[in-house]
Amino acid sequence: MTEKRPFDVLNNALNKNVLVKLKGDLEIRGTLASFDVHMNLVVKDGEELKNGELKRKLGTVLLRGDTVVFVSPAE
Amino acid sequence: MTEKRPFDVLNNALNKNVLVKLKGDLEIRGTLASFDVHMNLVVKDGEELKNGELKRKLGTVLLRGDTVVFVSPAE
Amino acid sequence: MTEKRPFDVLNNALNKNVLVKLKGDLEIRGTLASFDVHMNLVVKDGEELKNGELKRKLGTVLLRGDTVVFVSPAE
Amino acid sequence: MTEKRPFDVLNNALNKNVLVKLKGDLEIRGTLASFDVHMNLVVKDGEELKNGELKRKLGTVLLRGDTVVFVSPAE
Amino acid sequence: MTEKRPFDVLNNALNKNVLVKLKGDLEIRGTLASFDVHMNLVVKDGEELKNGELKRKLGTVLLRGDTVVFVSPAE
Amino acid sequence: MTEKRPFDVLNNALNKNVLVKLKGDLEIRGTLASFDVHMNLVVKDGEELKNGELKRKLGTVLLRGDTVVFVSPAE
Amino acid sequence: MTEKRPFDVLNNALNKNVLVKLKGDLEIRGTLASFDVHMNLVVKDGEELKNGELKRKLGTVLLRGDTVVFVSPAE
Repeated sequence: MTEKRPFDVLNNALNKNVLVKLKGDLEIRGTLASFDVHMNLVVKDGEELKNGELKRKLGTVLLRGDTVVFVSPAE
Repeated sequence: MTEKRPFDVLNNALNKNVLVKLKGDLEIRGTLASFDVHMNLVVKDGEELKNGELKRKLGTVLLRGDTVVFVSPAE
Repeated sequence: MTEKRPFDVLNNALNKNVLVKLKGDLEIRGTLASFDVHMNLVVKDGEELKNGELKRKLGTVLLRGDTVVFVSPAE
Repeated sequence: MTEKRPFDVLNNALNKNVLVKLKGDLEIRGTLASFDVHMNLVVKDGEELKNGELKRKLGTVLLRGDTVVFVSPAE
Repeated sequence: MTEKRPFDVLNNALNKNVLVKLKGDLEIRGTLASFDVHMNLVVKDGEELKNGELKRKLGTVLLRGDTVVFVSPAE
Repeated sequence: MTEKRPFDVLNNALNKNVLVKLKGDLEIRGTLASFDVHMNLVVKDGEELKNGELKRKLGTVLLRGDTVVFVSPAE
Repeated sequence: MTEKRPFDVLNNALNKNVLVKLKGDLEIRGTLASFDVHMNLVVKDGEELKNGELKRKLGTVLLRGDTVVFVSPAE
């Protein structure tokens, strides 16, 4: 799984667990289900974290790309 | 109901209950009535929440796409 | 009055009372007189609200689209 | 003076007194001298207000469109 | 010196003293040396002001257009 | 390794250690694995720093370009 | 060295010492090595300043254009 372009990270992370940091100190953890060129992301079994603690379970969640700070796949 | 692209989540959520988080710690809960490519959303029977508590009932509300942080359909 | 696209809400709200929430916790209440594709809005008999209380009467006011958070027609 | 499009408000307000609210709780009051499609505005005899009080007299001032929150002509 | 378009203010202010307010409560005072369509500005003999007081002398300074709030020529 | 254009710095830093400062006082340190024209970056063995201290290890992380403040290669 | 357009300031400052103010009260001082039309800048021997005091030495640093507030060449 080579990653020559940044979005290859998203492609390789499909159906895997990811941590997404959003602007405003919010984080979502869950399974990456889809993404597009704007970095809009769908996460399944999403959990909202605040300061590293589980705040609530969201299930499926569509994250707007321009609020994303980073996406980190679990390893 | 497959979801290959992020916006499929919105399409599958039409006429269903959604939770929308907006920038500035504001949330709207209600029935998704329509959306467009900018992620502008119309929610019917919308309720404005602040810190998880009902702040007021808004009825129909048009949410501007660029203020959306995430959209999560009820499951 | 069907609303298949988000902007149909604005079209149906012309000459009716609307509540507009702007970025920065400001709200304008009044009669929607016109709008364009950028969501620039003109409100007549506009009142500026802060934390739900009347701050001042503005009369006619042109609201810049990119400061809009949501628009909710009175029902 | 009909106003079918939002910018008609600006056209009708030329050479008249306007109140302009800018992002960051700043307001400018003065005579609207010109505007363009980006909502860049020129105000003559401009006064800078902070919390409704006169802060200083600016004379002619060019306001950058993307800092505008609203424009309200005096009635 | 007629000013039919907002940028005419900049054209008429070339080589004259201007006050430029930037986002974040920063102000620059000096001689306008050049500008472009993005409202990028060059000010010569620029002084940085904070809350109306001289903070430091900058000499020549290129101001990025999208940080400009307003430009006011001295009269 | 000449650097005539800003992005040459990124090209020369591939597979080397970089420090990336993001908006919101967050920093990521790790090995630059890829980048694109939007300045989206992939960092391997990424560490999240807050106020200069290690906050957590992230492994691979995709950083969204519009949250980048600066990128500094280790020397 | 005439400067008819704002970017001429950058061109004339190549290989010279500059002070760059970024959004968020951060400043970088160093030698301007390259720039592009987005105002992305590369500074060599860059020093990060906070409130006018040296915070750390960064060496080469690529500054993202949309975080720039101003660039001031040393005179």
